[in-house]
Amino acid sequence: MGIISNRVEHYSGSGHANQEQTATTPVNVTVSGETMTSFAVHSVCLPPQKSTLQKLRHRLSEVFFPDDPLHGFKNQSRLRKLILALQFFFPIFEWAPNYSFTLLRSDVVSGLTIASLAIPQGISYAKLANLPPIIGLYSSFVPPLIYSVLGSSKHLAVGPVSIASLVMGTMLNDAVSYNKEPVLYLKLAFTATFFAGVFQATLGLLRLGFVIDFLSKATLVGFMAGAAVIVSLQQLKGLLGITHFTNSMQLIPVLSSALQHKNEWSWQTYVMGFCFLAFLLTTRHIGMRKPKLFWVSAAAPLVSVVLSTILVTLFRSKLQGIAIIGHLEKGLNPPSSNMLYFHGYFLGVALKTGIITGILSLTEGIAVGRTFASLNDYQVDGNKEMIAIGLMNMAGSCSSCYVTTGSFSRSAVNANAGAKTVVSNIIMASTVLVTLLFLMPLFHYTPNLILAAIIITAVIGLIDYQSAIKLWKVDKLDFVACLSSFFGVLIISVPIGLAIAVGVSVFKILLHVTRPNTGVLGNIPGTQIYQNVSRYREAKRVPCFVILGVDAPIYFANSTYLQERILRWIREEEEWLAANNGSSVKCVVIDMTAVTGIDTSGLAMVKELKKMLEKRSLQLALANPGGSVMEKLHQSNILESFGLEGVYLTIDEAVADISSSWKA
Amino acid sequence: MGIISNRVEHYSGSGHANQEQTATTPVNVTVSGETMTSFAVHSVCLPPQKSTLQKLRHRLSEVFFPDDPLHGFKNQSRLRKLILALQFFFPIFEWAPNYSFTLLRSDVVSGLTIASLAIPQGISYAKLANLPPIIGLYSSFVPPLIYSVLGSSKHLAVGPVSIASLVMGTMLNDAVSYNKEPVLYLKLAFTATFFAGVFQATLGLLRLGFVIDFLSKATLVGFMAGAAVIVSLQQLKGLLGITHFTNSMQLIPVLSSALQHKNEWSWQTYVMGFCFLAFLLTTRHIGMRKPKLFWVSAAAPLVSVVLSTILVTLFRSKLQGIAIIGHLEKGLNPPSSNMLYFHGYFLGVALKTGIITGILSLTEGIAVGRTFASLNDYQVDGNKEMIAIGLMNMAGSCSSCYVTTGSFSRSAVNANAGAKTVVSNIIMASTVLVTLLFLMPLFHYTPNLILAAIIITAVIGLIDYQSAIKLWKVDKLDFVACLSSFFGVLIISVPIGLAIAVGVSVFKILLHVTRPNTGVLGNIPGTQIYQNVSRYREAKRVPCFVILGVDAPIYFANSTYLQERILRWIREEEEWLAANNGSSVKCVVIDMTAVTGIDTSGLAMVKELKKMLEKRSLQLALANPGGSVMEKLHQSNILESFGLEGVYLTIDEAVADISSSWKA
Repeated sequence: MGIISNRVEHYSGSGHANQEQTATTPVNVTVSGETMTSFAVHSVCLPPQKSTLQKLRHRLSEVFFPDDPLHGFKNQSRLRKLILALQFFFPIFEWAPNYSFTLLRSDVVSGLTIASLAIPQGISYAKLANLPPIIGLYSSFVPPLIYSVLGSSKHLAVGPVSIASLVMGTMLNDAVSYNKEPVLYLKLAFTATFFAGVFQATLGLLRLGFVIDFLSKATLVGFMAGAAVIVSLQQLKGLLGITHFTNSMQLIPVLSSALQHKNEWSWQTYVMGFCFLAFLLTTRHIGMRKPKLFWVSAAAPLVSVVLSTILVTLFRSKLQGIAIIGHLEKGLNPPSSNMLYFHGYFLGVALKTGIITGILSLTEGIAVGRTFASLNDYQVDGNKEMIAIGLMNMAGSCSSCYVTTGSFSRSAVNANAGAKTVVSNIIMASTVLVTLLFLMPLFHYTPNLILAAIIITAVIGLIDYQSAIKLWKVDKLDFVACLSSFFGVLIISVPIGLAIAVGVSVFKILLHVTRPNTGVLGNIPGTQIYQNVSRYREAKRVPCFVILGVDAPIYFANSTYLQERILRWIREEEEWLAANNGSSVKCVVIDMTAVTGIDTSGLAMVKELKKMLEKRSLQLALANPGGSVMEKLHQSNILESFGLEGVYLTIDEAVADISSSWKA
Repeated sequence: MGIISNRVEHYSGSGHANQEQTATTPVNVTVSGETMTSFAVHSVCLPPQKSTLQKLRHRLSEVFFPDDPLHGFKNQSRLRKLILALQFFFPIFEWAPNYSFTLLRSDVVSGLTIASLAIPQGISYAKLANLPPIIGLYSSFVPPLIYSVLGSSKHLAVGPVSIASLVMGTMLNDAVSYNKEPVLYLKLAFTATFFAGVFQATLGLLRLGFVIDFLSKATLVGFMAGAAVIVSLQQLKGLLGITHFTNSMQLIPVLSSALQHKNEWSWQTYVMGFCFLAFLLTTRHIGMRKPKLFWVSAAAPLVSVVLSTILVTLFRSKLQGIAIIGHLEKGLNPPSSNMLYFHGYFLGVALKTGIITGILSLTEGIAVGRTFASLNDYQVDGNKEMIAIGLMNMAGSCSSCYVTTGSFSRSAVNANAGAKTVVSNIIMASTVLVTLLFLMPLFHYTPNLILAAIIITAVIGLIDYQSAIKLWKVDKLDFVACLSSFFGVLIISVPIGLAIAVGVSVFKILLHVTRPNTGVLGNIPGTQIYQNVSRYREAKRVPCFVILGVDAPIYFANSTYLQERILRWIREEEEWLAANNGSSVKCVVIDMTAVTGIDTSGLAMVKELKKMLEKRSLQLALANPGGSVMEKLHQSNILESFGLEGVYLTIDEAVADISSSWKA
């Protein structure tokens, strides 16, 4: 066995293990002119001494400021700091000074393109939330303006989105019916929007952005697909022309409601509806296949609205059965701060709806922002974005808007259409403004079926079956999380579906910690490398040693398991040795490289294990314990019981030193 | 820099990275007679191919059968297997054939000793659960007998315990008052016991024993101390002779109730009470200081009961103010299966009480069993113990017993008194039997104050302030978990206190995963060792490289954080290099040794990171990715994007190979 190590003691920090040095067969090795002596043992260091307060500060800064947001402010003059601070809080000051006519031209084109999508989608999504269609347009006017001042993403197209609309509609409708109490419903919607905004801004301010990370991608894939299926089925109401449709949001009631009211189906409606749906889906397909033709799918919804409205207006008398939007008020967003509802029976509903729609819309907004930032090679600060989205919703709730965020589909169109800055949002808002002021009467005869078709076309993209297949291939437990959020949303309800999915994701982490991998390591001959013998056929067990790798922090949740498992490994190795060459185990080395933390239960386990092995005359050594583990072993006085021959920097040194001590 | 590695390609599994071999400056190294050539690269292996079903089987066997319980059955004859199975299910068959008179003598001594503790404690604990005192004696008779057949611990002294009694008393009393509806209360107590037993046996049968691991030691220290404080304060009722005392279990109501009813304080009661309390505490102290005198503290409760009963009987007329136990029925446990309550309004209460007392008593029983097993060098199987405790409680609920388990204090006395097998439990049960049949009238004049003093003496040992101090020293977050369970129990309620503590413990695990340690690694000159530069002063940064260690699995909960943090490390290293020697970073190596798992979000992060670094003309390499990580990188096709120079077995090889490729 070619063990090469060097006789150099490394003192640093207050490392204290292995001060004894027993050198056996020192070997001179000449590498690039340096001469070293072999077979020595490196001491394992404790991390630099820090007070509890320093540790707490370091920990807090890692938890809340991992990106060191103020690093740009270091070593700057006062004036520069002021300007940086202004730019930090209002990104508009960062890009506005360099804004040019070329940029404006791109932004106008993209702004008009997304406006043509935003107007029909706004009307449709408002219906999804059981709100009057005009609220959808209001929500496409104020929030984008606010975002353009505060937001740091260049491509985010702000406005109502399908998921948040659906969830708000479902949750509020469970408490209050819009048809029966429209004013109360509106009040609750604005209040929920306000709470959503407060929640989002608070998360950002407290730098708790990592909360949304708990909605893993797997969870979201399942959740979105489930929501998309429900939303699409709900649209059967509009597409088939049913008047008495269930308000429920579960699969079975929706399906049975559609079938039960067969007598209400109107053939004019569903013929026209499915024709437009086919048209929209075809244009969507073209837009996806050929990214250059993105404008086909971008323009299709507006074209459909115009076409269908003309059709219905012309053949008004023959198409009586087709439901239309009806009268829409002209004019700007009326103020709605007087409609916020801060006490009374339904406050809890508004709060809950606000938090859930808040977190969902935040997740979508941040994910969209990050995606397009990384595609276009700039960075968005998650926490700053949260503040921007939160403030935009708070302002929205006072100006007759409901929950808005960055929409994935419209942002994609925005980016494809060549948007360069958030000015495209201002252009879009201006277009919506013109619509609100002058064009509202044109929507009077727009049939509801076209809104249903637009919604289906928009949400169908949320069913990402390819991702689901990939999840199954790569990570079965992620796939289970995905499935459970899908069926949870579909069969039980949106909040419970989400809760189940988050539960499964957290359970996965806990399972990883509760039942970590362990394995026997062996040496790859001629190297200092030790690897799992079941993975590397070359890795050979070292005689008289059992070298075990533990792949997790040792915590209360796994200390009992690890103790049992380690004892079983030792037993199995002993049995194997006895059966194969009759030798016996004399020392157990635990590779602590991947043991990234230890708590008091874990420390007790290590102590216990050492005692148990000692009773069986087995030596226990630890290889490469990490900084925090070393510190805790030291603080709990366990290190002392290990003495001089118990803690090594590498497995190789442990094996070399311990076997040489046997020879001596 | 002395980099020593060996030109040996290791093919195994289907490893495929780094098939290219560019050797620069090969060096001959002679170690113990072998000659090797330096500068070669080992391929990183994929783990052995397994089907989904095989993986699932392996995973399930690790989750549910980590101790391989059937390993003793391998390669045995049929008859032997049958005997082993009998011994497996009924440990009595294991020890009974070798039982001898010497063992019996020890067991009789220890059995009588624990009986002298069990009788007064049984009566006292039953009062703690608001149950008639005799139930405590019943519970010290049937369950120990059942445990002696099924249990595998040699030192467990079975019977009622303080924590489970307190919790049962609190939770049932919230729903039903014993004084108003004694029969319903009794029914609920037996039903809760039944459910506790079913829950415990089910956990054991389904091998879900790890559930109790989630009550970490830190949690339990706080919980027990909180419960002990509450229980002690509750005993002011008995010690001061108050008749109208609160049923509440929170700190403030209990204290204020004791002070409000000052007019009810009886001086005879509290003088006598505090005298006996002082006596009991003194003997307890002696027993703790000198383990040989354990019999002093073991005998003290019975001595106090006898003494106080004689005193009260003699001076009956003068000690009118002292409350006494009163009439106790002679006779054996009456059957109570007809009192189990499986439908109706209070079923939920019984179920909840059963599960919570079940898990608490299980935790105590298993912990006690493990402690004494490890002290006396034998093993107890947690899951088998759970079945034994569960069946014993199920049987108990049908014979007028309430929740029982292994008591810590009595088991310690049992062990000290020299118990050798569970026969000491049989001896104890026989003594209780004699008491039940003949001695019950003797307890008529036993004053309640002595029961209060016994309870206080017993629970005061649960306040383990030394452990709390140690928690503070070693692990601040564990201390927070401890404190929150302490105050949760004291101020809110027992179940909520427990829930908070478990929540804090789980949060700790999540925090560890959400914000893992990362750090820059450097080479210890003359070795192949790479360590954190902030911990090892000798560790030197390698020019042109940023080597980062990541100390956690890369999951959805930390992938965003890790991406930001890694980019920040790179930025900081670039700034540092620019300021110090003007060189630039050309390659980033991530040490994946401690990355024990990766999920789809983590994979997306790695892919994203690679893309981002490529845009900045930085190379990314991974060192020592573990088996499951490697497999997932492979399945998700990310490995391909790394190509030949991206995945290495060690950091050292990565650095050597990449720098040599630059030279070439």
